Amino acid sequence: MFELAAYLESKRQLVNDRLEECLSGATWPGRLMEAMSYSLMAGGKRLRPILCIAGAEAVGGDAEAALPAACALEMIHTYSLIHDDLPAMDNDDLRRGKPTCHIAFDEATAILAGDALLTMAFEILSTGNGVHAHPPDRWLAVVGRIARAAGSRGMVEGQMRDIAAENAELSLDDLARLHSLKTGALIQASVCSGAVLGGGTAEQIENLETYARNIGFAFQVKDDVLNVEGDPTLLGKNVGTDELRHKSTYPSIMGLEKSKSFAKELIEAAIEALNTFDHRSDPLRTIANYIIERKR
Amino acid sequence: MFELAAYLESKRQLVNDRLEECLSGATWPGRLMEAMSYSLMAGGKRLRPILCIAGAEAVGGDAEAALPAACALEMIHTYSLIHDDLPAMDNDDLRRGKPTCHIAFDEATAILAGDALLTMAFEILSTGNGVHAHPPDRWLAVVGRIARAAGSRGMVEGQMRDIAAENAELSLDDLARLHSLKTGALIQASVCSGAVLGGGTAEQIENLETYARNIGFAFQVKDDVLNVEGDPTLLGKNVGTDELRHKSTYPSIMGLEKSKSFAKELIEAAIEALNTFDHRSDPLRTIANYIIERKR
Repeated sequence: MFELAAYLESKRQLVNDRLEECLSGATWPGRLMEAMSYSLMAGGKRLRPILCIAGAEAVGGDAEAALPAACALEMIHTYSLIHDDLPAMDNDDLRRGKPTCHIAFDEATAILAGDALLTMAFEILSTGNGVHAHPPDRWLAVVGRIARAAGSRGMVEGQMRDIAAENAELSLDDLARLHSLKTGALIQASVCSGAVLGGGTAEQIENLETYARNIGFAFQVKDDVLNVEGDPTLLGKNVGTDELRHKSTYPSIMGLEKSKSFAKELIEAAIEALNTFDHRSDPLRTIANYIIERKR
Repeated sequence: MFELAAYLESKRQLVNDRLEECLSGATWPGRLMEAMSYSLMAGGKRLRPILCIAGAEAVGGDAEAALPAACALEMIHTYSLIHDDLPAMDNDDLRRGKPTCHIAFDEATAILAGDALLTMAFEILSTGNGVHAHPPDRWLAVVGRIARAAGSRGMVEGQMRDIAAENAELSLDDLARLHSLKTGALIQASVCSGAVLGGGTAEQIENLETYARNIGFAFQVKDDVLNVEGDPTLLGKNVGTDELRHKSTYPSIMGLEKSKSFAKELIEAAIEALNTFDHRSDPLRTIANYIIERKR
């Protein structure tokens, strides 16, 4: 019987330790490092790094070899949170139960800490090769996969559309497209980067793309649900903010109960995409269920 | 006799054409692309890409093979200008003779356009290998070199110190350190990335590091000089702003005339570092002189 809690905890520890090493290796003591560390080590779920590691393991690779990519993905995720929280964007003052970066430091420092985390992600990817035995073309492929997912045809474009969508009525299709860009692309890149580094075949990677697309989608539906009925203490952030901002969400378009059953269907589709994988994909299967059962 | 103007013009054209291609290849039509294109195609000098190409040529490589790195460097330079100009940072409203990105668009779009350009730089570097014959380990080395130069021990840290230095009295050493981070590191990465891609030896790359460190330094001294006595029409930006902000500059610490002769000495040292190179390093030699003679 696969124990998710223990698995998540051990991988989280692995990732946190390596993130600390990366930070001290790539920055100097000072305000910039403090701001980067403040946001990066603020106790996130580490979902993307864990998906990256689990993706490597599912195709028979090992966690250690995927770790540089896992850390790079968390750095990119964190930078996107820091910038999204800025006054010019979502103007949030609470994140993971703590003041957001621009509140704890200042706006200029927050912008630069985000920039530095994004840049550090690629620095880490470029050195992954030195430590481990992967051929450099595999690392270069991962640089490309992650950059595409994070950039102007991925996460950044998703954030543009998210801002434009405030006070606008979106169709379900528009909303799905927005989320596949804003969060889906990086989640897909997480699973698939791990699989590339783990030596997955083209067919395996294609199946994992399907898996990741579905859990990424479900993740967002669940996020919207939590923004309606979640516990702010557990979440570490305010709830009800989507409605306050008149944002189109799954609950606002299809209703709360329908959103929950939709998320469930997506998770079933994700797990089905793992049919041809053996027990080494159990973490991915269990994480899929965790995504819709989570309280934070 | 080497003709600098014709050389710069032909390389600038090469870079601009490829930048246009990169933009349309990596973005969708829309506000994000417009903002990225607005700043990236605003008619900069293309100093970094040209240095990258000239670095490749100096060691016997060709311009075409260095072009993805040349474009990546310009994207990173442009992103840094967009973010530096933001209200939370330098709060500039004029750049290259045009309204800055956050004035022409809005603050959120400017932050995201910068983020997307930085990300696109690494996307382009990851695909450089597909088009050309360089081994992937060379591209991976360039990813690392550029990321280190642009990040928290390079350009971003330099900008942090630049902000902290406003209204502070800096020593010459502090000022030199600030500039070596803020502009020097990326200029060095430009010349050296080209040389790595061009197949330069370790000794050649070391000499080019010395060359680049000196021209980067001279470039900043000259920038400070232009901020005192430059022509705002030629520069495309306001002058006298450093004094207005009580910024420590070379002219403010060592005086205007001494700053000019210091820049000259640095350029002589840069050219001396090219002693063991043949005529293929003529562009680098001539660019060095251009850096202190430029009016913009």
